[in-house]
Amino acid sequence: MSAKAPIDFYFDFSSPYGYIAATRIDEIAARHGREVTWRPMLLGVVFKTTGMGPLPSVPMKGEYSLRDFARSARLMNVPFAMPAKFPFNAVTPSRVFYWLQDRDASLARRFAKAAFAAAFPGQKDITSAETCADIAANLGAKREEALAAPNDPAVKEKLRVAVEAAVANKVFGSPFIVVDGEPFWGADRLDQVERWLKTGGW
Amino acid sequence: MSAKAPIDFYFDFSSPYGYIAATRIDEIAARHGREVTWRPMLLGVVFKTTGMGPLPSVPMKGEYSLRDFARSARLMNVPFAMPAKFPFNAVTPSRVFYWLQDRDASLARRFAKAAFAAAFPGQKDITSAETCADIAANLGAKREEALAAPNDPAVKEKLRVAVEAAVANKVFGSPFIVVDGEPFWGADRLDQVERWLKTGGW
Repeated sequence: MSAKAPIDFYFDFSSPYGYIAATRIDEIAARHGREVTWRPMLLGVVFKTTGMGPLPSVPMKGEYSLRDFARSARLMNVPFAMPAKFPFNAVTPSRVFYWLQDRDASLARRFAKAAFAAAFPGQKDITSAETCADIAANLGAKREEALAAPNDPAVKEKLRVAVEAAVANKVFGSPFIVVDGEPFWGADRLDQVERWLKTGGW
Repeated sequence: MSAKAPIDFYFDFSSPYGYIAATRIDEIAARHGREVTWRPMLLGVVFKTTGMGPLPSVPMKGEYSLRDFARSARLMNVPFAMPAKFPFNAVTPSRVFYWLQDRDASLARRFAKAAFAAAFPGQKDITSAETCADIAANLGAKREEALAAPNDPAVKEKLRVAVEAAVANKVFGSPFIVVDGEPFWGADRLDQVERWLKTGGW
C-alpha cells in the first residue's frame, strides 16, 4: 500500500474564489484518500510576473467578477459577503499561517479556514495583526506570540520562500490546485479536481 | 404562451473556449425551449477596453491555457487541435458570418460551426477569405459572393457595429453567454447556463 501524494492547494487570503475552494478542498481530497497541503501565497507578487492585476481593477471583468463571486458562493451554498476593503494585502494572515504551520499543521489549516470565514462572510479586516491573533487565539494558539509572528524575520522569510516557490511552480491565480502534477486554476474547477482524483485523468 | 427571449452567444472565431461552447450551446438552449443568437465579435477590440491580452501571451497563464484548452475539449468529448497560427485575427470569418446572416440566419450559424471546426480540429487557416468562401460554398452559399463579402463596406460596418454593441454590453471574453440579462463567461460555465435556464436563477 503506497500513500498517495498530497494535493497542493495554493491560495491568497484575499481571494474570494480561494475562500470558496477552501470550504471544499479538504472534503474532496478526503473522499479520495488524499491529504491537502495548504499553501498561502501573495497574488500581488504573482501579478508582477504575469502582468495581470486584481480582478476588480479590470474594466467590465471586475464588475462581472463581483457578481460571479456571490453567484458562485450561492451555487455552492457557501456563506459569502465582500469585505469592506477589497482587494486587500494578505501578508499578515499568511505570515500567521506559516508561523502556526511550524508548530501544528492542523492548527494552521484551521486558522486558514477561520481567517477566510472572518474575511468573507464575516467582513472582518484580516490585514490586522490583532484580528489574526484573535483568530489564532480562539483556536488555542498563544495570542501574544501570534501577534508577534508577522514581525518575526524567520516567519517573513518563510512566506517569502513560499511565494517564490509558488511562482516557480507556475501558480498564477487563486485558488490553484495541483493533483499529481496536473494544475487546476479556479474554484470552478473543483468538480474537475474531484474527477481527476477519481479517474487519474482524462 | 409567451416566447422566451433568445440567449445571446458572443464569441471570437479565434477562441478555443468559444469553439468548445459553440459545439454545445444550441442543444443546451433547445432543451429549455430557447433560441440562440450567435454574435461573433473581436477580442482584440475588447482587449483594448479591458487592457487584457490574448491568453497565450500571458506568462504562466498562457502555458496553462494551452493545456486547459485540450483538457476541456477532452472532458467534453469535443474534437480539438490548436491551429498552427494562434492567436489569429477573426475579422474575415466574422464578416462572412454577418454577410450570411443578412441572407439566412440558419446558414450563418452553420457557417460559424463549420468555420470553428475548420480552425480547431481542422487546423485550417480561417483568416483566409478563400478558406471562408469554401466553407460557405460547401453549405450552399455562392462562393464568389462569399469571397467578396469581407471587402464589402456594408458588411465591414455590420461587424464594427456588432463589436461595439458587444463592448457596450460588457462582453469582455469569449465565450460570453447572456441568459435573460445574466452574464456567464467561459466554456466552463455551460453547466451553470443550463442550470440558470432550468431554474431561472439561484
